[in-house]
Amino acid sequence: MSDAFAALPKPPYYAVIFSSQRNGEDDTGYAAAAQRMVELAAQQPGYLGVESTRGSDGFGITVSYWDSEAAIAAWRQHAEHAATRAHGRTHWYDHYELRVAKVERAYAKSALDPARQRD
Amino acid sequence: MSDAFAALPKPPYYAVIFSSQRNGEDDTGYAAAAQRMVELAAQQPGYLGVESTRGSDGFGITVSYWDSEAAIAAWRQHAEHAATRAHGRTHWYDHYELRVAKVERAYAKSALDPARQRD
Repeated sequence: MSDAFAALPKPPYYAVIFSSQRNGEDDTGYAAAAQRMVELAAQQPGYLGVESTRGSDGFGITVSYWDSEAAIAAWRQHAEHAATRAHGRTHWYDHYELRVAKVERAYAKSALDPARQRD
Repeated sequence: MSDAFAALPKPPYYAVIFSSQRNGEDDTGYAAAAQRMVELAAQQPGYLGVESTRGSDGFGITVSYWDSEAAIAAWRQHAEHAATRAHGRTHWYDHYELRVAKVERAYAKSALDPARQRD
């Protein structure tokens, strides 16, 4: 299985779905900050994993997974994360949407395995 | 705002988060089927919108949005959709993960507007 996939426990857990359109500016600064946020998020209590991709048109989706709403709230209040978000709002994105959701069911399939239901 | 973003009502609503690793085969057939599924989904009762992207490494995330669990179940049972999924499992993907979640809160920000909370 690719490293791109998050290895998650059985539901329920929480997802933060962040879709964004990059403005095409400051690719170097953006890439460094994105990598730093992934590393920092992984150190937070309640972090479960992340999946992220961006197409050549600059539209991207990142989904981070957390074990509780409290963990999401704590990460949102993390000082370095908050500062990076504030910078990103004015420097990196034309537009973004952020949605917080409770994952209730999950399924997976690998080339080597038949489809299976996780819950 | 880019067409890549789904224009959604206020929460609550449901999200189907589909992350997948393409196997690099049959790009033409895959692209045609993906476009057809987006068009067909948009015709289904309870469909709210979709956001989708895939990076150059073949890892992609598609999030479709629905007004109810019943709408997701009906789309899952749609004959053409089921046939396309069955084909995709054996022909297009090395691995995929599918998660069904209830969106509880949403936020957005455009370059022209300050951040705002939707709910």
